[in-house]
Amino acid sequence: MEKVQQDCYNEWMSLQAKRMTELKQALSSGEKDDAELRKLIRTVVGEFKDYAAKRCKHSRRFSSNYFAPTWNTCLENALLWMGGCRPSSFIRLVYAMCGSQIELRLTNFLRNNNIDGLSMEDGETDGGGGGSIGGGEPMSDLTAEQLFKINELHIKTVEEENKLTKRSASLQEDTADMPIAVSAFYKEVIGEADVVVERALDKHEEDMAGLLAEADKLRLTTLTNILEILTPVQAADFLLAGKKRHLSMHEWGRSRERRRLEAY
Amino acid sequence: MEKVQQDCYNEWMSLQAKRMTELKQALSSGEKDDAELRKLIRTVVGEFKDYAAKRCKHSRRFSSNYFAPTWNTCLENALLWMGGCRPSSFIRLVYAMCGSQIELRLTNFLRNNNIDGLSMEDGETDGGGGGSIGGGEPMSDLTAEQLFKINELHIKTVEEENKLTKRSASLQEDTADMPIAVSAFYKEVIGEADVVVERALDKHEEDMAGLLAEADKLRLTTLTNILEILTPVQAADFLLAGKKRHLSMHEWGRSRERRRLEAY
Repeated sequence: MEKVQQDCYNEWMSLQAKRMTELKQALSSGEKDDAELRKLIRTVVGEFKDYAAKRCKHSRRFSSNYFAPTWNTCLENALLWMGGCRPSSFIRLVYAMCGSQIELRLTNFLRNNNIDGLSMEDGETDGGGGGSIGGGEPMSDLTAEQLFKINELHIKTVEEENKLTKRSASLQEDTADMPIAVSAFYKEVIGEADVVVERALDKHEEDMAGLLAEADKLRLTTLTNILEILTPVQAADFLLAGKKRHLSMHEWGRSRERRRLEAY
Repeated sequence: MEKVQQDCYNEWMSLQAKRMTELKQALSSGEKDDAELRKLIRTVVGEFKDYAAKRCKHSRRFSSNYFAPTWNTCLENALLWMGGCRPSSFIRLVYAMCGSQIELRLTNFLRNNNIDGLSMEDGETDGGGGGSIGGGEPMSDLTAEQLFKINELHIKTVEEENKLTKRSASLQEDTADMPIAVSAFYKEVIGEADVVVERALDKHEEDMAGLLAEADKLRLTTLTNILEILTPVQAADFLLAGKKRHLSMHEWGRSRERRRLEAY
């Protein structure tokens, strides 16, 4: 089973890398074509939906794999919430992009006007790379109305997240109850086969699969809601940031693991 | 590093198996020696404290491993809360043991008095094993005062758990902000080395290690508080149930993984 699940993940990661390049190209062309960007955004959202549907299908009876996948680095697994990223972290990313682009714009303004005391070395606000992908700073142009809507969405998302967190806690605790924990207590031999326990564990994994599907749904809803609030250029910039963050964390996690292995 | 961490875990698991046998023996002797039981309980608690101290030492800069350990089965990892079990699941176990022993006592009473319509096949209340380890049903003898105290502890524990869950959410979300996510955005090459990011990830792992230590502290406090409420026989019974649950889940998780691997 895990092989199928891992293939599905690998496919998803290559797709992300591909779309990342396309988003970057679409954003860096001098004349941005909103219709073209919208089409690309729809494709990306559709692929996320497909991926969630596949995970849902593969997890129906073997959901445990998804809550700490072996194909993730341990850095990523420590950041996992219900088998993926926290939906509220999408919103945090909007704020982070907006803030960093305002800073960058300010830095550029000060530099271009030769205002003393500020040079390239003083600030790491551009992350060392220098300049926004799109050549402009679309995320720093968020209007008050957009920020208000994003904030409203944030509150709603955290509420939904908390509900799912609570349900997961309750499912986890159930395993300390009848029949699992009690059967374990009365067994003479540790790990002895037990139909009642196996059935309860199957049920537990099915319930957790249900939770995973709902978490993926919340991730998707949050994503589409954000995209609706943003302009096409902002939306593409945001999706690009999300993909780069995911792909980068995976690579950074890998290189940290390699370094640790070498050190011991 | 992981090797040291895994050795520490293996040591802990063998110790648990050893203490399980000792608790079982102490409980099944005809005449229970409270002083002897108390000594054993103190040893078990002391060992938990030592284990937590070792985890704390080993996790200081490499904490990610603990949030989805490779030495756990995926079934166990899906049940993890802050690198271990939920403290509130200890309390759930007290209730489960109490309930199952009352049921068992009732079943035995009905059977011994030849009350019709109830035979071994009707109920799975004894978990298929038949009979409590201690020969008596100490957990079913919880007094109203004990139950009241356990309930109070439950409420307090859930509150503390929620606080830590919230802090973990906030730490997780920080990685979607400056500098990590923003640096990822401005990088030309995915996973490119970056001192600022590495420093931020080190800081992140250190913060997560702090959280792990606090979660272990809460687990320990909850455990000792429960033990203080229970009589020595009840406390030994409860510790035995906890150890059997942990060891059994590990074995059941392994056999489920083996079966799945064979099926594909």
